[in-house]
This record gives sequence, C-alpha cells and structure tokens, in this order.
Amino acid sequence: MTDGTLYGVGLGPGDPELVTLKAARLIAAAPVVAYPALAGADSFARSIAAGLIAPGTREIAMEIPMSTERVPAQAAYDRGAGDIAAALTAGDNVVCLCEGDPFFYGSFMYLYARLADRFAVEVVPGVTSLTACAARAGRPLAARNERVTVLPAPLPDHVLAERIAGADGVAVMKLGRHMGRVRAVIDSLGLTARATYVERATLDNEVLCPLAEAPDVAPYFSMILITKGADPWL
Amino acid sequence: MTDGTLYGVGLGPGDPELVTLKAARLIAAAPVVAYPALAGADSFARSIAAGLIAPGTREIAMEIPMSTERVPAQAAYDRGAGDIAAALTAGDNVVCLCEGDPFFYGSFMYLYARLADRFAVEVVPGVTSLTACAARAGRPLAARNERVTVLPAPLPDHVLAERIAGADGVAVMKLGRHMGRVRAVIDSLGLTARATYVERATLDNEVLCPLAEAPDVAPYFSMILITKGADPWL
Repeated sequence: MTDGTLYGVGLGPGDPELVTLKAARLIAAAPVVAYPALAGADSFARSIAAGLIAPGTREIAMEIPMSTERVPAQAAYDRGAGDIAAALTAGDNVVCLCEGDPFFYGSFMYLYARLADRFAVEVVPGVTSLTACAARAGRPLAARNERVTVLPAPLPDHVLAERIAGADGVAVMKLGRHMGRVRAVIDSLGLTARATYVERATLDNEVLCPLAEAPDVAPYFSMILITKGADPWL
Repeated sequence: MTDGTLYGVGLGPGDPELVTLKAARLIAAAPVVAYPALAGADSFARSIAAGLIAPGTREIAMEIPMSTERVPAQAAYDRGAGDIAAALTAGDNVVCLCEGDPFFYGSFMYLYARLADRFAVEVVPGVTSLTACAARAGRPLAARNERVTVLPAPLPDHVLAERIAGADGVAVMKLGRHMGRVRAVIDSLGLTARATYVERATLDNEVLCPLAEAPDVAPYFSMILITKGADPWL
C-alpha cells in the first residue's frame, strides 16, 4: 500500500473566509485532520476550519502543554508525529490544520522535522497575521525598497531597539506580558505616534487602536505595527 | 445614491488555488474589477483571478509604464484612481486585484493613498510570496523568538549585510539584475550553504534550487531565503 501524504495547511489569521481555496479543498477531502490544542483549551486552528471538516473525518488532537519548558511540548509533538505516521502508513492522507502560515512562527515545523524524511509532505502557505494586521490597521507595511522586520516581543530590549531602528516597517508579535517593556522601547525611539496595536485581527472580538491607547497587558494573539514609510503617493 | 466600496484584494503568489475564499467571493460578485498591468504586458494579477471574473464584469486596466522614474507611474495611478472614483461614485463596488498581499510591497497602497479619505476601502490580505517561497523550499522561516527580515535587493551592500547578519530568517526580494551582488554579500557572510533560490513560487514554471546553483540573472519574481534557524525539533 502507498503511504499517504501529509499536508501542512495554513488557515490564515482567524476569519474562516481567509482560508485559501486549496486549504478548503484539502480539508473537505481529508480522511484525517490533525491539529494542536493548548492543554485544557479548544484548538484555535480547528475553530477556523470547523465549517470545512466533513462529518466522519478522523481527528488527531495534539494536546500541547502550557509551559515555557521545551521538553513537555517536545514529547507532545513526538506523540502527535507517531499518530500521524500511523495514519500515513495505513495509506490515509493527513491534513494538519495550522493557524496563520505553517512556516511562519507555526508549530507545524516540529511535525515537519519529525516526518519529512519518511513521508511525502506538502506545505500550503496561508495568510499571516503580519499582513492581516496591516490590512485591518490600514497601514501599508512596505513599499519599494523598504526593509521589513518581524520581532517576537520576548527578545531583549537592546535587540528590539536595534532592529526596530534599522527597519522601515516593523511588526512586534507575541506581546503578552511583554507589552509594557515593548511600549517603552518604542517610546524611547520616538515612534509611538507611528505605532498601531492590533489584537485578534479579523476575528469578531478584534481590537484596533493607536499604541498610546493600547492596554497594558496584551493577549498572545496581538501585534504592534510600526510604519515609518515615506509618502505612499508613489 | 450611496457610493460603492473599494476592495483591495490580495490574490497570493500565483497559484489560483491560493486565493482566499473571501477574495474569490468578492471577485465573483464584483460589477467592476481594476488591476495594474505593466505597459505592453498582460496583467499578472488578472491572470491569477481570471477564472473567477464573471462574464460581463467591467474591467479597469491601469497601464503602468516600465520605468524606475516615479512621475510616469504616479500619473498612471492618478488616472486609475480617477476611473475607480467614477465607478464608486456611480454606486458600484470595485475590486482591485493585487498580486500577493495589497500592503506588502504592493501597488495597491498608491490607490489607497489617493482614495481612502473619500471612499470606504477594505483591504483583504493575501498569501505573500514570503511564506509561499518558504513552503515550496521546505524551509521554515522562523520559530519561537527568531527575527525575520525582508529586504529588497536594490538596497546597498552594507545595508543588506548588516540586516542579514542580525536576523535569523531572511528573504531578499526583487533580485533581477542585483542577483550577483546579493550573492556576493551572502557569500561574504558565510551563509551561501543556508540559502535557497526560488523563482515564480507556486507557478508551473517555478524554479527552486540551492543558491550556489542559481542563475546569474534572476527575474523580478524571485527570492533568496536564508534560514539560520536552530534545531526545529522544538
């Protein structure tokens, strides 16, 4: 029997209509879907794709422990990869549901690293939160020869400051409890007036405001956009 | 009569199946579509959406002169914005077709700058060439707290070198005649072995190879990806 193919499918930032036609087709036809779920919570990826999963589809939920330690999560991906490998070996295709894009700060790469040497794997790119936030904020990220930088908020202050200063369009992701610290860095660079805060972009409970009016504590799915761009008239 | 709404709709990197469900719905229902076309050539954006445009849809083709001078293109966007404004004022919605994502090195921002103060404008994000190239190359762009930087190739050598050295995942876009120069910069940083060349990602004539084997002259729709990332096992 021929092994199945593993598809890592980007689902976009949250609005189910921002799924691609290819992702929708693959999910609807999948005998097996797999997805990560933070322990004790519903899977965000599954919620985006819920309307596309056919009745009777087998589901592999990978419960990822809430921890900054790597070992417990590593074990969870080991188990998930084992379950997926068993389905592939039985000849079934498996569609792994991924928030945003599978290879842009996504967890799919941990499955890819475990399975791509043994099975056919296709990665289907998705809309990232990066451009979704820019679209919602009405702030073009980059034009012409501008430099774009994406920075996770847990980076040290001096790294954030240096990278923000040297770019034209900036996104700071994964704000969470780092919000106050990131805000201070941006303020020290004199860029607060050019910064927009976006939370849960494209979802019903989206929040969008100038950074100066943003809350002191942000959820994980939040971003600060800074655009220094010149005149966009051309 | 109520004015129509202008939609700036990202179409993804080229594969028509990487259009989002929302973009497909808006295009199919549009009384008017608008798109840029480089003078004398077919519109790449229109070619991606061709199968979605209903018969009888009115088309506004904005012919953009091939030039590095800004003034002629600025005049073309002035004319295009005028045509679109007339359709909106007549009550029609207008869907502007955009390669990739409208706010990520896209030309839609020039229309946005001209029209967003007078008309309702909605930007619909699309899959960028950034993550499409990473997907096709099988190279995760960034994990955890890694820094991602996107750089247009025309930037000076020292800017490219400094920004590449300070990032974990790098994309160099718009290679064209800058290919040799960019390759030398990457080589001087000792990163050639970590660099992948991708041309026309997701299209039938896609090219994908290690940078060391890439051609000396690249088309505009090409990219070099550099991933320095650590162990992706977790």
